[in-house]
Amino acid sequence: MKKILMLTTGGTISSIESEHGLVPSNENFLNNLGLNGNFNFDLTIKPILLLDSSNIQPEEWNLIATSIFEYIPHYDGIVVTHGTDTMAYTTSMVSFMIQNPKIPVVFTGSQLPINNFLTDAISNLRTALQMALSGVGGIFLAFDRQIILGTRAVKVRTSSFHAFESINVRPVGLVDSNGLVLNEKYIPKTNGETKFNNKIDSNVFLLKLTPATNPMIFDLLIEAKVKGIVVEAFGAGGIQFIRRDFIKKIEEAQGAGIPVVVASQCLYEAANFKVYQVGKKALNAGAIEAYDMTSEASVTKLMWVLGQTSDLNEIKNYFKQNLAGEISDRIIK
Amino acid sequence: MKKILMLTTGGTISSIESEHGLVPSNENFLNNLGLNGNFNFDLTIKPILLLDSSNIQPEEWNLIATSIFEYIPHYDGIVVTHGTDTMAYTTSMVSFMIQNPKIPVVFTGSQLPINNFLTDAISNLRTALQMALSGVGGIFLAFDRQIILGTRAVKVRTSSFHAFESINVRPVGLVDSNGLVLNEKYIPKTNGETKFNNKIDSNVFLLKLTPATNPMIFDLLIEAKVKGIVVEAFGAGGIQFIRRDFIKKIEEAQGAGIPVVVASQCLYEAANFKVYQVGKKALNAGAIEAYDMTSEASVTKLMWVLGQTSDLNEIKNYFKQNLAGEISDRIIK
Repeated sequence: MKKILMLTTGGTISSIESEHGLVPSNENFLNNLGLNGNFNFDLTIKPILLLDSSNIQPEEWNLIATSIFEYIPHYDGIVVTHGTDTMAYTTSMVSFMIQNPKIPVVFTGSQLPINNFLTDAISNLRTALQMALSGVGGIFLAFDRQIILGTRAVKVRTSSFHAFESINVRPVGLVDSNGLVLNEKYIPKTNGETKFNNKIDSNVFLLKLTPATNPMIFDLLIEAKVKGIVVEAFGAGGIQFIRRDFIKKIEEAQGAGIPVVVASQCLYEAANFKVYQVGKKALNAGAIEAYDMTSEASVTKLMWVLGQTSDLNEIKNYFKQNLAGEISDRIIK
Repeated sequence: MKKILMLTTGGTISSIESEHGLVPSNENFLNNLGLNGNFNFDLTIKPILLLDSSNIQPEEWNLIATSIFEYIPHYDGIVVTHGTDTMAYTTSMVSFMIQNPKIPVVFTGSQLPINNFLTDAISNLRTALQMALSGVGGIFLAFDRQIILGTRAVKVRTSSFHAFESINVRPVGLVDSNGLVLNEKYIPKTNGETKFNNKIDSNVFLLKLTPATNPMIFDLLIEAKVKGIVVEAFGAGGIQFIRRDFIKKIEEAQGAGIPVVVASQCLYEAANFKVYQVGKKALNAGAIEAYDMTSEASVTKLMWVLGQTSDLNEIKNYFKQNLAGEISDRIIK
């Protein structure tokens, strides 16, 4: 009989009503799983945190990744329940911290608490458990009957059950009347040894530009000694340089040894510096292209890469590599 | 014969190849409109800017809005060509600056230059012109055969022709074999006089949170004397308060007279503070809810409101009002 571990971290899925609104609790979680012994695997549940995921931060990423890595040798699959708000940040970071896992590690959560009559928790948990039983190694997010690669998930809806989308690649699996159907083509090969590396530098700032953003923010960030900056630029990588000159600021950051990754504030499709004059200026100033990475993947990848090196050229090289399915190979080639 | 004005501002639609990549130019624009006299309206074209829209900033918003307002009495409809990168910021701001316009003001652009064989410019321009002839007052964005309310548009794709989406409301119109079909129900009534008010304070910072964001950024922004902050929180309005305490920072900003608007980093659906403990804490700290506004509308509305008042209570009242279709009435009621 296959052995499945479920690590719980809190979130809406295990929340209960209180006078302060919904708060995470383990009180009813176990009783409401809706499984009633109707399964043929050995399920172990271990609570490791009890937080609304708005409060899941780098310290918790480390705890979650370390727990997963420790349990991997002892189980056939791992499910992690997690609040939806920051789940995509966690799945991205865990994907960099644990590369080439040999078993499925499947994050899930829900938009309504598990003890709500209309909850989506039961179907999300069943989807996640089925994926955990699949034997396919990787870090995944299961939600609304889809399986999404950990580095490609983004929460795009605040209340619908279809809260997550797989950005710029198809979901790697879905549940329909055929059961769980996996699209192996979209699942990165887990070649080589499982690598665990939880060294990060989380001192990274995400700067979403508006047409009015004052470039002075770069001076403030450099003075505050941030170690890296991810810029969410316009469209395929547009950055203002007339009057408010961000190109000069990227150069200055570069000069101060601070890598600047440029992603797009468009949810879908790739940043591409090669088309427009402004993009070429950014590249010349030393900006690192995020290609078709999500902002969640761009930010967590920069933190993880900064844990490995502070050399700008080495950092740039890391960003030309697809470490955990976060970039489409056809784009970096 | 109806009189239509086309104001051009640059952008991909009027770009040509150069050794530095695509740069805006008026050289071929007029010859490539693809109209060849095949229309029964009187078209006047006036170039007012020649910029990649990454470089369209508050100073240009003012010029564009002022030009539109001056020409409104003399035309039946106005089309504004504009780069796609920041078009949604411009249409949002112009919607606040010119409320209740009595004629259609329709922004459009394209993903491929107008002289490219496969360009989307011709169909976008024809859609925009048809909308400009409709007689329906309002600020709109026409793209990929859809008409989107100016305050609801977001650029969501970097390269597809379907670059813009109408967020949280349906498009107000579309083109199919019936021609231009308008859904009047989704178009705000232009009751009362046209109001022109271009007074803004653009000293607003957009802060997209990550789980690792250092709350110290609030101190830097307060010290740098920003006048307003829009926070893109997690999910329905989640904000970390353990270890990295942003709730305390919102209180401090409030104490310094700086309004903090909390929007969601999810593209779709509304921020809602009433469900979770963290949301309630944010409300108690004085945060202003963005409801279902886009980030583009939240940022430009805060700039516009700061142009009218610096009183925190008056600012909060403005944010409870639907000024230009930017909030769903059912949500604020």
